[in-house]
Amino acid sequence: MALTLNELAGKIGARILRGDPNMFIDAAANLAEAGPTSIAPFTDLAYADELAKTRAGAVLSKLDAPAGLPQSAALLQSSDPELAFIGAIEALHPARLETPGVDARACVEPGVELGQGVHIGPFALIRSGTRIGARSVIKAHAVIGRDCVVGEDCTIHPRVVFYDNVHLGKRVTIHAGAVLGADGFGYKFRGGRHVKVPQVGCVKLGDDVEIGANACIDRGALGATSVGDGTKIDNLVQIGHNVSIGKHCILCGQAAIAGSSGMDDYAMLGGNAGIGDKAFMGKGSKAGAKAGIMKDVAPGEVVFGYPAEERKSAFRQVAALRRLPQLFERVRALEKLLEKQNDS
Amino acid sequence: MALTLNELAGKIGARILRGDPNMFIDAAANLAEAGPTSIAPFTDLAYADELAKTRAGAVLSKLDAPAGLPQSAALLQSSDPELAFIGAIEALHPARLETPGVDARACVEPGVELGQGVHIGPFALIRSGTRIGARSVIKAHAVIGRDCVVGEDCTIHPRVVFYDNVHLGKRVTIHAGAVLGADGFGYKFRGGRHVKVPQVGCVKLGDDVEIGANACIDRGALGATSVGDGTKIDNLVQIGHNVSIGKHCILCGQAAIAGSSGMDDYAMLGGNAGIGDKAFMGKGSKAGAKAGIMKDVAPGEVVFGYPAEERKSAFRQVAALRRLPQLFERVRALEKLLEKQNDS
Amino acid sequence: MALTLNELAGKIGARILRGDPNMFIDAAANLAEAGPTSIAPFTDLAYADELAKTRAGAVLSKLDAPAGLPQSAALLQSSDPELAFIGAIEALHPARLETPGVDARACVEPGVELGQGVHIGPFALIRSGTRIGARSVIKAHAVIGRDCVVGEDCTIHPRVVFYDNVHLGKRVTIHAGAVLGADGFGYKFRGGRHVKVPQVGCVKLGDDVEIGANACIDRGALGATSVGDGTKIDNLVQIGHNVSIGKHCILCGQAAIAGSSGMDDYAMLGGNAGIGDKAFMGKGSKAGAKAGIMKDVAPGEVVFGYPAEERKSAFRQVAALRRLPQLFERVRALEKLLEKQNDS
Repeated sequence: MALTLNELAGKIGARILRGDPNMFIDAAANLAEAGPTSIAPFTDLAYADELAKTRAGAVLSKLDAPAGLPQSAALLQSSDPELAFIGAIEALHPARLETPGVDARACVEPGVELGQGVHIGPFALIRSGTRIGARSVIKAHAVIGRDCVVGEDCTIHPRVVFYDNVHLGKRVTIHAGAVLGADGFGYKFRGGRHVKVPQVGCVKLGDDVEIGANACIDRGALGATSVGDGTKIDNLVQIGHNVSIGKHCILCGQAAIAGSSGMDDYAMLGGNAGIGDKAFMGKGSKAGAKAGIMKDVAPGEVVFGYPAEERKSAFRQVAALRRLPQLFERVRALEKLLEKQNDS
Repeated sequence: MALTLNELAGKIGARILRGDPNMFIDAAANLAEAGPTSIAPFTDLAYADELAKTRAGAVLSKLDAPAGLPQSAALLQSSDPELAFIGAIEALHPARLETPGVDARACVEPGVELGQGVHIGPFALIRSGTRIGARSVIKAHAVIGRDCVVGEDCTIHPRVVFYDNVHLGKRVTIHAGAVLGADGFGYKFRGGRHVKVPQVGCVKLGDDVEIGANACIDRGALGATSVGDGTKIDNLVQIGHNVSIGKHCILCGQAAIAGSSGMDDYAMLGGNAGIGDKAFMGKGSKAGAKAGIMKDVAPGEVVFGYPAEERKSAFRQVAALRRLPQLFERVRALEKLLEKQNDS
Repeated sequence: MALTLNELAGKIGARILRGDPNMFIDAAANLAEAGPTSIAPFTDLAYADELAKTRAGAVLSKLDAPAGLPQSAALLQSSDPELAFIGAIEALHPARLETPGVDARACVEPGVELGQGVHIGPFALIRSGTRIGARSVIKAHAVIGRDCVVGEDCTIHPRVVFYDNVHLGKRVTIHAGAVLGADGFGYKFRGGRHVKVPQVGCVKLGDDVEIGANACIDRGALGATSVGDGTKIDNLVQIGHNVSIGKHCILCGQAAIAGSSGMDDYAMLGGNAGIGDKAFMGKGSKAGAKAGIMKDVAPGEVVFGYPAEERKSAFRQVAALRRLPQLFERVRALEKLLEKQNDS
């Protein structure tokens, strides 16, 4: 969508410090890739080279007069250029909406409650007892089980599967292929075989949660597996049964949490990091990529490695390990020296 | 479902040691979450605190008179309370059945053989030459390829995909999004490019196998990729081509086995643990979470870490590594002492 | 399919050195599993035992007279028996083709361009503005978003999802359940919550790319996430937004690349290995299974472990770590010796 510089500045709360207010901007781009009708952000002095070379029609910055800004570029100033740039992306590349209504090829079982303005895409299946909140979008091929609740303004991408009893808050986004509510992995070993513990609990997601593509969140064995408001979960993440995740947490791609473990508000789990059995991450704690957490992490603590340890201590170990082959030589030298002393 | 305490005790083979046989129980729950119409298990003295505080209407225990059992709770006694509690979950929260029959929106190609009482859900696709055993449930959106065999009493959850030639035993459960029979990852490098080795084998699963959501089991390049009776595979697990997995194995979430590797009966692979090329886990061996197995594991052995080593040895290394920075200081002190001796 | 030995030899460019040219061969198999109407490859002396015992009707080898070849087996000779065997698999086990045409149960939105001989399977959904190249096969339940381009001779397996703006070259294969073009994982933290950065870029795949089952390739935040010609990506791999992958790379199962990182041509990432933020693998470099790459890898370098290091150095550390508990004892012995010296 094309906007004048003036319209764009108004939408994102920025000031025009340089350039023609009537010029048209039609795309958001990075400094290196922007063309004469694009706006690009300059948010970090590390990008000074890109700034000097940019062909962007307009640059968005916190600064009044960024050094090296090409003459060809208009300048928009904002006290929070990162947030203003998000506004610019939204204004210039608006999300493509789906038409409200139920596609003729969808299957909505009797006993489903659909809110106003809901979209149900082709081949979607909504099972009985389920409630879909106003303006929510259930895209093609999604399967929503029985007795589920999808809050208002949610987006369920193609091919998502909810088993029965999955409850979502408002403004939740679930990406393609995610599975919510499959059986937790629970067995008792008897007579040489694994006897399944029936998994009859549910999944509860708060408001503003986002779940990545092909991620899995198992339902509780008896109670709930829960994810708090504002938590963001990336692709291919695995959440076991009865896990409890707080508010505004971040779980990067391929992270995992074993059954009955969890994390408090604002905790962060790096890519492919995992929380083992009955371990818990405290509020605001962080685990680096591939960390393997085997015991509780204190609030605010940052851990690394496997078994995960406090970051500085872990890094000290990594550094020491690198010099370990050399240490063997030093010890051998000492031994030889003492042997010689004792011989003489 | 509500049952009298007496009915429930009968179904699960427990004795009423205290409480009104005619009271109603309608849910299974943990001690901490149970209410006055719930039954909760007390299977471990570690939960003595929860027992003392529980509001459960009935408690199930191995003990005649568990210390601290609240006056409000009835007491059921069983020689195996864990197994009896599984019975209680099944009795109080029976699985919701699908109606036998083929949904009008399903697509069953000619030349398919359907057993008695089979359910085929909306938008499911069953391709030619395939046989579905009696009472099996193929849920919505499942795609079953050509020349497959699904045994009796299987449950195929929504959106599962079988490529051609996937063979299942009886009472197999496949969770949503799992893919069975995709091409193995095999190429020969010629003339600067990777030439695909056609993957024309099959997948064979025994009886009572369970496969988790979004898990992948590739078909054999020529022969079969096989999973033995009673083996349980969790979400997002990756099984390469021509892998051989024995009976009653456990593979936790995000575990992986590279092509042509495998494990013998009763072996266990922890979460995100992996078996590398041409390595094999012996009978009853176990690998901890995130272990990376690069060579054969002996029967009964327990391994940990990457490269995976015998558990005690691996733990001793982890402990030594933690003290390694300090060891550098001790060696430095020795060196200084000897320098001083030599100087004097 | 059954062929005479003579026909088969002609198709794969091999010479018959022994055996009846009119005998029938109907399967390709390994030496150990081959029967009297199968052809098996003998490509490595390590399989001499299997060769001596094989019941194969014909053996394919580089050698004129492999020692131990059973009398029962015909002999085909080829200068590249691995490649010739690929030809034999293709000839004896031809891929089962889908009938060209659009299935009546598929949903093709207005404004879609379909090339000649395209197959669109049942319940597939092709959205407006998309172009499908000649002879491409879109199997059942695939969802192709808006404004996508699928080149000629591609195969899209069941239940694949493309979001909008996914562009494929020619002869691309995407396996079941893969998701291309889902939102990258990008947020800015403001006022105690994660504000989503809209993801409006695209995905671009070159020619001859293969993507595994349930793999995820996120679209760029603004620009493209790109995969070069001939690159092969295995099951459950995660590719973040704006990642750049060169030509003829190999990414094994469960590998991952964080946003804006990448790899140059001919690089290889082992199973469950990962590239962290803003790291890049040089041309022809290799990372072992489970490696965690935290900084650039030089062209041709081979790395291992986490944090990933040059392979020899990493292995030396692993070996040293194994002997570390013993080193503590040696240092303790030195300390005691010196204490004794100082006491006396």
